Amino acid sequence: MKRTSMEGQACSVARSLDVIGDWWTLLIVRDALAGLRRFGEFQRSLGAAKNILTTRLRALVAEGILTTAPASDGSAYQEYLLTDKGRALVPVLVALGQWGSQYVFQEGEVCFTPIDAAQRPLQPLRPHAADGRALADTEVVFSSGLGLDGLPPPRNQP
Amino acid sequence: MKRTSMEGQACSVARSLDVIGDWWTLLIVRDALAGLRRFGEFQRSLGAAKNILTTRLRALVAEGILTTAPASDGSAYQEYLLTDKGRALVPVLVALGQWGSQYVFQEGEVCFTPIDAAQRPLQPLRPHAADGRALADTEVVFSSGLGLDGLPPPRNQP
Repeated sequence: MKRTSMEGQACSVARSLDVIGDWWTLLIVRDALAGLRRFGEFQRSLGAAKNILTTRLRALVAEGILTTAPASDGSAYQEYLLTDKGRALVPVLVALGQWGSQYVFQEGEVCFTPIDAAQRPLQPLRPHAADGRALADTEVVFSSGLGLDGLPPPRNQP
Repeated sequence: MKRTSMEGQACSVARSLDVIGDWWTLLIVRDALAGLRRFGEFQRSLGAAKNILTTRLRALVAEGILTTAPASDGSAYQEYLLTDKGRALVPVLVALGQWGSQYVFQEGEVCFTPIDAAQRPLQPLRPHAADGRALADTEVVFSSGLGLDGLPPPRNQP
């Protein structure tokens, strides 16, 4: 399906998806969170062609999700580091990993998913209302792309 | 970038991305969460061509994210309803919406983002360790696609 730019949309979900661009973006961010920094490391991890990975990394730098720096060991390599905006994608990756580990793996399959420092799975992410109450998935209110639901635009967060 | 199937990967993030397929999937889920049920409603919301939307909806039904049912008003229309697996994508959409509303909107722009029943923005999603402690984004441990990091595979969740 050809992707239409949703940049002009007022829906925060749609616009995030537009900025993120495609799945490779989130896998590059995953790898950066796992400690990878160099072109060759991302390439080996993702199995992507050089020219394509170059394009994706440039786009991530242009979006302010990654930034470049000289190699930390003084060599000629360039390193790609996450910005605050990039690291703020952690909840997106955790949510994707938790959904996957619950719904798309068979019993007993090896499943790597985000963990804590003690190497234990995180608690399931749970939305909370403005007043702190934990919400069931059915209690979260979404707007469609139709703009006809009459809900006022909530203020920007946080 | 041509998408390689990541179905065989042990990474829960990668496999979720593979099942979800592309951004349109999450926008269809968003619209279903907003109460849309019929083909024409999704089409108007997403601005997608009929044949393409048909393919996407079929894929979502095949993956068990949507299910079909006769129209609730007794008419000849078919309705698309979220399954538990589909509704469990709520934290993914909330995380995307919160990231977008914080990082890709300008001050003062209209920004629709998931809200609570009182029409207030949700609290920011925050990962918690297995012992209940709230974690900073820097404390969540990710694996790269390299499989060389020596971490044991965490158990499936929940």
